[in-house]
Amino acid sequence: MEELTITPADVKKQKPAPEVLGFGKYFTDHMFLMDYTRGRGWHDPRIVPYGPIALDPSAVVFHYAQEVFEGMKAYRTVSGEIRLFRPMDNFRRLNDSCDRLCIPRLREADLVEYLKELIRVEADWVPAREGTSLYIRPFIIATEAALGVHASATYLLSIILSPVGSYYPEGINPVKIYVEDQDVRAVRGGTGYVKCGGNYAASLRAGERAEASGYTQVLWLDGVHRRYVEEVGSMNVLFKIDGRIITPALTGSVLPGITRRSCLDLLRDWGYTVEERALAAEELFQAAEEGKLEEAWGSGTAAVISPIGEMQWGERHAVINRGKIGDLTQKLYDTLTGIQWGREPDPYGWTVRV
Amino acid sequence: MEELTITPADVKKQKPAPEVLGFGKYFTDHMFLMDYTRGRGWHDPRIVPYGPIALDPSAVVFHYAQEVFEGMKAYRTVSGEIRLFRPMDNFRRLNDSCDRLCIPRLREADLVEYLKELIRVEADWVPAREGTSLYIRPFIIATEAALGVHASATYLLSIILSPVGSYYPEGINPVKIYVEDQDVRAVRGGTGYVKCGGNYAASLRAGERAEASGYTQVLWLDGVHRRYVEEVGSMNVLFKIDGRIITPALTGSVLPGITRRSCLDLLRDWGYTVEERALAAEELFQAAEEGKLEEAWGSGTAAVISPIGEMQWGERHAVINRGKIGDLTQKLYDTLTGIQWGREPDPYGWTVRV
Repeated sequence: MEELTITPADVKKQKPAPEVLGFGKYFTDHMFLMDYTRGRGWHDPRIVPYGPIALDPSAVVFHYAQEVFEGMKAYRTVSGEIRLFRPMDNFRRLNDSCDRLCIPRLREADLVEYLKELIRVEADWVPAREGTSLYIRPFIIATEAALGVHASATYLLSIILSPVGSYYPEGINPVKIYVEDQDVRAVRGGTGYVKCGGNYAASLRAGERAEASGYTQVLWLDGVHRRYVEEVGSMNVLFKIDGRIITPALTGSVLPGITRRSCLDLLRDWGYTVEERALAAEELFQAAEEGKLEEAWGSGTAAVISPIGEMQWGERHAVINRGKIGDLTQKLYDTLTGIQWGREPDPYGWTVRV
Repeated sequence: MEELTITPADVKKQKPAPEVLGFGKYFTDHMFLMDYTRGRGWHDPRIVPYGPIALDPSAVVFHYAQEVFEGMKAYRTVSGEIRLFRPMDNFRRLNDSCDRLCIPRLREADLVEYLKELIRVEADWVPAREGTSLYIRPFIIATEAALGVHASATYLLSIILSPVGSYYPEGINPVKIYVEDQDVRAVRGGTGYVKCGGNYAASLRAGERAEASGYTQVLWLDGVHRRYVEEVGSMNVLFKIDGRIITPALTGSVLPGITRRSCLDLLRDWGYTVEERALAAEELFQAAEEGKLEEAWGSGTAAVISPIGEMQWGERHAVINRGKIGDLTQKLYDTLTGIQWGREPDPYGWTVRV
């Protein structure tokens, strides 16, 4: 592992009050950087003052979106220490994203160590108020200055940190979602199973339309049949139908969420039958109409658990659990955030001390 | 139309020799920039010295690939003047790309004027040797510093210029293509019909695999059935089968190429029957096996016309016109480049004097 260098910031920013944090609006005093050059590999890991990234206008990332990212969080536990949640899983997925986008892989264990060092430098930035955390955004961008369509010969890896409150202004309150029947987020054979920018760019228009109609998120259908449920906004989606847990299988167009996997582990341990399979919107709305759709929620790093209160699909409307958060959704939220903030024991070894 | 300001470069670069140009490797002394701010609109058009773009590390373009681009060329005609090829069509398509990616539209006619001004400033950079031209790359990137998944509130439009030779080192020689049966470039409902970075990022892996196996490009199949031909690499694709011209219809996952449209206009005027429709790979290879696949070529701004000499689809192999450029492909190339370089009259009014 190459030793990292640290260049401290001369001037420290004023830290925002916890109640104004929102999501991804404020950034800490430092960032982590590392370069890749073909022939030399990844090199020069360093912590430097947070500041602009300057690239040639022809840099590949500006034209061909060769870029991948991850999202995770550091939590200030009730005892005051700082913990990460499953960071190796995030860096493993970062490498999967790299593979799909022809970006050279990184050593995952090294990245965990560099990240810990960065968080130690920024320890004062990990907020303590309930519901707050330090959002961690590792990302890689292609920096070569050349317009031929090709994988870049040079890359920049960066990790930036942002103290955050709730992702949704609604907090843990149930959201209304709209089943998107025009735009498609991903298709098998595409990039839907990795965290690359293009997936998110493709999702913006449907998100704006949903928002304009009073919905918080869209529920994506598969790109082949436009019948099967895939994700909700930028989260995985899980349903409790007639006592069983159903979530779309990971068939190439759905992101393998780490919060999703954590939910499934908990649910199986709690004795639930979990079905990872194709789930048609028709089946979902029929279950709702028969009173069998008991709970629905999204899972993701940013919001952890986001209950779904209402769904609209064309002319069909479903209200779930009278628009209130369900007991199981609440229990998942309490357990996951309990483990993350150290209010509950961590029998799975998911958290890592910084 | 807002007047543009010009800040001349203090130092001018040495111009590369025409034989080393390649594609998109050298850039001129100046670039065009224009800003967008929500509430204020597009503003401050300016020509400034070519140089790095500095963005906050949290800029939307680095994470969610909210970015679109165009490609066109300026040609030094045989009489020494400089001409553009259908620039309004490119800026119209840029606006289509903006619509899909939630980027605010621009006034197309203004962009043509700004571009002309930029090219006048860089007139010495338009190369004169046969087969060379000045490649023009307008692009827009989302610059807001915020990590919530949303359309950016600020954007930067830039136009950069690069003197180019042939896109392919092979020049106008026929290329070998590989029918890609794993990765998918686009699906209807997605972003395949616009020029956004994500489409190109998704295409890199298949391109690398094809190259490693000795092919120049991949032939993409549709994302729904994986049966129908869509594009070749980053070009449209056209076939002459049994005397008729067949090209994939523009059904939402194929880029509406301006060179494609120009080819179709010419071919119709030359009396050919042109079919824009679904074309199965099976039909294509069967036609080849029956000796009816007479010619095949890609069309695009970068390469103009790129003849296809061989195709591989799983175990099936097709050689087209004994691996030589066909008469019609050659005639299209000669006519299009003849109009572009002013060697032939321009009855369609496609070219615009700078």
